[in-house]
Order: sequence, then structure tokens, then C-alpha cells
Amino acid sequence: MSETTLLIHDLEAAVSPAGRGPLRGGALGDLEVHSPASIAVSGGRIAAVGPPGEVLRDHPPGPGCETLDGRGKVALPGLVDCHTHAAFLGDRADEFELRCRGAGYEEIHAAGGGILSTVRATRAGSEEELLTATRRHLNWLLRHGTTTAEVKSGYGLDKETELEMLRVIRAAGEAHPVDVYPTFLGAHAVPAEFSSAAEYVEFVVTEVLPEAARLAEAADVFVERGAFGVPEARRYLEACAGYGLALRLHADQFSERGAVALAVELGARSADHLENTGEEGVRILGRSATAAVLLPACALFLGLPDPPARALVEEGAVVALATDFNPGSSFCSSLPVVMNLACTRLGLSPAEALCACTANAAHVLGLDGEVGRLAPGYRADVLVLDAPDWRYLAYHLGGDHLAAVVKSGSLLPAG
Amino acid sequence: MSETTLLIHDLEAAVSPAGRGPLRGGALGDLEVHSPASIAVSGGRIAAVGPPGEVLRDHPPGPGCETLDGRGKVALPGLVDCHTHAAFLGDRADEFELRCRGAGYEEIHAAGGGILSTVRATRAGSEEELLTATRRHLNWLLRHGTTTAEVKSGYGLDKETELEMLRVIRAAGEAHPVDVYPTFLGAHAVPAEFSSAAEYVEFVVTEVLPEAARLAEAADVFVERGAFGVPEARRYLEACAGYGLALRLHADQFSERGAVALAVELGARSADHLENTGEEGVRILGRSATAAVLLPACALFLGLPDPPARALVEEGAVVALATDFNPGSSFCSSLPVVMNLACTRLGLSPAEALCACTANAAHVLGLDGEVGRLAPGYRADVLVLDAPDWRYLAYHLGGDHLAAVVKSGSLLPAG
Ligand SMILES: [Zn+2]
Ligand SMILES: [Zn+2]
Repeated sequence: MSETTLLIHDLEAAVSPAGRGPLRGGALGDLEVHSPASIAVSGGRIAAVGPPGEVLRDHPPGPGCETLDGRGKVALPGLVDCHTHAAFLGDRADEFELRCRGAGYEEIHAAGGGILSTVRATRAGSEEELLTATRRHLNWLLRHGTTTAEVKSGYGLDKETELEMLRVIRAAGEAHPVDVYPTFLGAHAVPAEFSSAAEYVEFVVTEVLPEAARLAEAADVFVERGAFGVPEARRYLEACAGYGLALRLHADQFSERGAVALAVELGARSADHLENTGEEGVRILGRSATAAVLLPACALFLGLPDPPARALVEEGAVVALATDFNPGSSFCSSLPVVMNLACTRLGLSPAEALCACTANAAHVLGLDGEVGRLAPGYRADVLVLDAPDWRYLAYHLGGDHLAAVVKSGSLLPAG
Repeated sequence: MSETTLLIHDLEAAVSPAGRGPLRGGALGDLEVHSPASIAVSGGRIAAVGPPGEVLRDHPPGPGCETLDGRGKVALPGLVDCHTHAAFLGDRADEFELRCRGAGYEEIHAAGGGILSTVRATRAGSEEELLTATRRHLNWLLRHGTTTAEVKSGYGLDKETELEMLRVIRAAGEAHPVDVYPTFLGAHAVPAEFSSAAEYVEFVVTEVLPEAARLAEAADVFVERGAFGVPEARRYLEACAGYGLALRLHADQFSERGAVALAVELGARSADHLENTGEEGVRILGRSATAAVLLPACALFLGLPDPPARALVEEGAVVALATDFNPGSSFCSSLPVVMNLACTRLGLSPAEALCACTANAAHVLGLDGEVGRLAPGYRADVLVLDAPDWRYLAYHLGGDHLAAVVKSGSLLPAG
């Protein structure tokens, strides 16, 4: 038995998604609750979660063991944000203001807004500036309990900047408590230098992908009118799969264009957004291994319809939640806020929302058995809440109950 | 010229609602921006806001003067939350969960939820427990930049507990940086001990009001089916006005019942909620001195229609924003989150949202010229944001950019 390096003792409760792997249908929201509880950590992994007496007996703290007093507090797994665009320069506060006043996509585009405005800002800055900004954004995610995050490229859209983004995303994660998984979103928008989506995709696949594939874990494409159609998405994703990248899709955000069927056909890890997914798309996802990643903060920012969350749960889809953190359509870096929106707008229960941004989000990142649960063998990523009930995380909108964060077994400094 | 006790120097900008008194129509959102700026404070009041050189020349820091480096930061007035129910015991996390799952009012009531469940918890606790809880809740408000708050009674509904609540609300404010203004919400719900709203109102007016009036600044009534009709509200409010209390009304939350017309007729300071206010109510408020207090977090929590914010602005009403912080219908203590909801859901601009929860909220509390602006003579309640643009307060949903809070001229400790 290896040495206990951290003991979180005498918690009111330790709360975790039950089981192993993704949770779907009626099992979404199944929790394993130990109350009272202690958590023993050894070498960055959870060694045991259970009744304090038992944990103390089987995992006694040695001389060098750190201890954290859990009295009056509740432990949860560190949150997993499986869809962010957290590497960018500049902001889009002007666009936010225009949109509040009712401006539509066209007007915002005419005012220099939209994805391409962040592309301009990101291309114009240095790699060092992008690294500093990305680290700051990771701090914002961590501040609300995210300990694992996916971060996409897609604000470069040329070879040099896309590769720079992926290098920066990797480097930011290496020097930061948040574990970062880079996704190559080479097909985010069609840059002005290209006359068609197909032409741009050929460039990406032949010129950028071979090097990008060495830096990224997954690939993503924005299927939408004005962005990429199904033929271009297929070409892009099949090429990316050929390099061993896992597949993701931005699907049905503004209109249904076949992205869900393509996702399932190609065995993508997820179809994300789904604000305009109809019954057929829900049924397809319900029968597939492809997860449905819902982004209610984006729907709030853009005034989109809410995605069919309850129907997806009821049809058996693997439902995950994420922030979609980006400077335009979702300037929200807080998964607890997203959990509240999932409860108040999407009809998820707090337990369903918790499973959706822990165990199921981990599944989307290929991290089953690794993060998203408080269970032996998992990475010791633990949130300690100073609240009488773990549900405050979703219930108290904008609340701030995080008393401590443990990342890979290390207690992080406050703030 | 009095001595400068605090100098906030070399800010990127100091941003405040323009003018004096409430802002309405096209003037809502008018800001006075000094960039760069310094702020001189003397004896708890703002002495000057303006160009750094000018402020330094006219208000030089003496030997005992504190200084705060504003470089890279932005100053705003402390936020004013003009509608909260922040004095309560217990929580309603169970009810939140039921509601997420689609439970309606009846089912929640049958499960022991609703206002009366908080009445039970509040009656069951001691005055000391209520004071501790209320202080904790004030900490939550302050944490997001609220430096002045109205707090209502209304979870007692018997003489002893209503008076206890008002004493606690006063006491909590006296020992806390947040300045607290108590409102007597004797007519919040009809307790089970009474057979009709009219009978209960007679009890309140004759037995409770004479002592409550010495503890409160204002009176409030919940006009709604199942609560109080216009005749009972009129009886209650006229009696309260007779004791010199300012008047407020919970109006049109679930149904239109004439509360807006009553508010204007009685010269109430505000009609609050307005989720179901129609065109006629909007027109009446547009022509009156009675403010329209909008509570978008409550609409989110309950899935209510959004109040007609743009129509109210366009008809010339004095529009204010507040959290409605309470454990049931709006467990949100963050005015910045409310500002974001006002922008994303109600169509206010960030500047309109800022004016609505500073200058206009101050007006609702009878505090014109006192709080809600960064201007000479006002209380020195100042937020210092570490953000490149003051609009991040509304734009970054769940963001956390508060670098410092100055309350009545004192720099508060961090955290
Ligand atoms: Zn996205
Ligand atoms: Zn209220």
C-alpha cells in the first residue's frame, strides 16, 4: 500500500457520479454519496473515499502527510470543461453591447465583429502574449472549480497561427494546475484569403494538419451555413481521423445541416451545441456513442433556443455540459453558472448537471477512469465546498462556495 | 478644504452614471467617464473625480492618506441592490431541484416548499442565528460589489418574528460594510393562522405596524392571487404611509391585478417584478415617478416571461435592477450576474444596466445624491475592477474582476 500524501478528513459528505464510464438515460444523475466521509490521496491519485474511521484505518497519514479539515464541508470531483475556446487575444465587449441592443449577425459582422475579429486580434499578437492571455483564462476557469479543460485552436486559420495556438495551448497547460487537452479547430471559419470552404479545407488538410496532429488530441469543425457544409466537414474529419485525432463537431447551432448524422457515422466523440436539433437528431444521438455537449451559456448570450436537453436524456444520449468559453458567443468561464442554467433553462436536475460536467465531460475528452469522479484510482482532483449542501454549486447562481481545490493531489493556494 | 484620506490614483477610467437623480428614457445609460482618472476621498465622501494631475493638485494626499494604485484598473460606483430578502434561515435546495424537474407551484407547496417553508425555518431559529445568517448573506452581496442593500422582512408573519427580523436587519447592517435599508414586508403571504388576507392585514396594521414602523424605512406588499389583492394592499400601504414609511409593491409577477395603478396612485417608490405587466401598465409607469424594479434572476429561476424592459425604458419609466435575492425564487446574490441577464435577456445595454443598479436603485431607496455615483459629495463607495473595460462587469458572466472595494472611504480587506 502506497503512502497517504493528503488526507481530507471528516467531510459532511463526498459526492461523486456513480458507476464508471459515461452515464446516460435514467443513470444520469446517479450519485455515490458518502456521509460523513474522508478522502485519502496517494501520489496524485485518490486512494480511498469512504467513512472517516475506515479511511483513517486503511490509509493512515504518515509523517509528511498534508491534512485538510473537511468539517462542515462537502467534496466533489474537480469539474471538467470539455468545450472551450480559451486561447484568444482581445475581447468582444463592443459586440456584446451591439447584441444586447438587438443587432443581428450581419450588423455585428459589418461592425467588424464575429469570429474573424478574434482571428485578427490573435494573429496580430505574439506567441508570448497569447500564452499570457491563455494562462489568465485558465485561472478564470480554475477560479470556479474547473480542473480539466479542453481548449480549441481556430482563431488562427493560417498555418503559422494555428500551430502557434496549439503550441500555446499545450504550454499553458503544462505550466498550470488545470490539465489542458488541445483540440485542432482548423475548420472554425473560412478566412478571407480563401474563396470557398472546400478550398480552405484542402489547404488545412494538406498544409496544416500534418503538423497540427502532433500537437492536438482531437479535431473539431463548425458545420453551419457561412462556415462548413457536411462534404467539407467529412473531408476534414476523415483526414484528421487518419492522423489519429478524436473527432468533435459544432452541430446544429443555428440550423440543422446533417452534422449530427455525420458525427455518428464517423464515430465522433461528440456533437456540440444542438440548439436547433430536431427529433430525428435526438433519436440518433440517443442510440449512439457520440455524446451531446450542451452549452446553455452560449444560448443565453445569443438568444438561441435552448437545446432539447430532456429529450436527449430520455432518448438515452450521453449528455455533457460545457461553457463554450469564448469572447463572442459565450463569455462565461464558470461551470457552476452553466450548471445553474442547465437546471433553470434546460430542465436538468442538479445531480444530472453535475454528472454532465464531470463524468460525462471526461468521457468526451477520452478520460474515462481518469477524471470526473471521486473514486479510487482517479486523479485526485477535488473541490471542497463551504456549503451545507453540494447542490449550492448549481442552486446559488454566481455563488462562491469553493473553500479549497486539490489538483492531482496538491492543495492549491487560495485565490 | 478638508483633508484627503484616500487617493485612488491613475485609474484607466472612472465611470459613473451622469447627471443627478434618476435616469429615464434616452438618459438611462448616460455615463460620465474620466479617462485617465484619480479619485480623492475625504471623510467617507468623494471629494473629487477627474484627471489625475488636477485631482492631485487640488486634493494632495497628506501624511496619513491611504493610496490605492489604479493603474490598469477601472473604478465604478458601489452597486445598490434595492430589492432583497436577505434575512432568512434555511434554504430551499429541495424546492430548486423539484422546480428543475418541472414541478409547479402546487407540487412545491405540497412538498412543503414556497415562502411559508422559509417562514417556518425563520420562526424556528433564534434571533442570534438569524443575525449570523443575515451577515453571511450580506458578505455574499458584498463579494460581488454591492455596497448598499435593501433587506425585507416577511418571513415572520407574526408580530414577534417580523419585529425580530427588522431588528436583525438593522443590526446586521450596523456591524457590516454594506449599508442596509430595512423594509417591512408584513404583507408577504397569508400565514396559516389567519382565514383571509383581509383579516391578516388588519392584524398587521393594528398589532405589528406601530412597532415595525420605528424599525423600517419602507413597507412592501405582495399583490398576487393567493397573496394580497388590491383592497388589502391599499389598506396595508395607506396605514404604512400614515406612519411615514415609503411604499413598495411586488406587482404583476404571475398575473396583472392592478398593482401598478395602485402603486402610482399611492405615490409608491417602486413597482417591482412586472413579468406580466401589459402595455397599459408600461404606459402608466412611463408617466409616473414610481420606479420599475426588474428582477431577471427571478424570471430565470421560475421560468417566468421576461419583464418588458425595453418598452419601460422607451416609455420613460425609471428602470432599476435588483437581485430579489431569496432562497426560493432567486438564489442569486450577484448584481453583476443580474446585469448580464439584463443585457442578454432584457435587451438593456451594459451602460443602461449599470445605471439601473446604481443611480436608479439609489433613487428607489430614497438615496439620490447619496450613493450610486462617483461624484463629489456622494458616499465614497467605489469598486475597482481589474479588467480592460468596465463593461466586463456585465459582459463576463460569473466573472470575478473585483480588485478592491472602498466603502464609505475605507478600503476593505480582500476576500
Ligand atoms: Zn464552440
Ligand atoms: Zn421580492
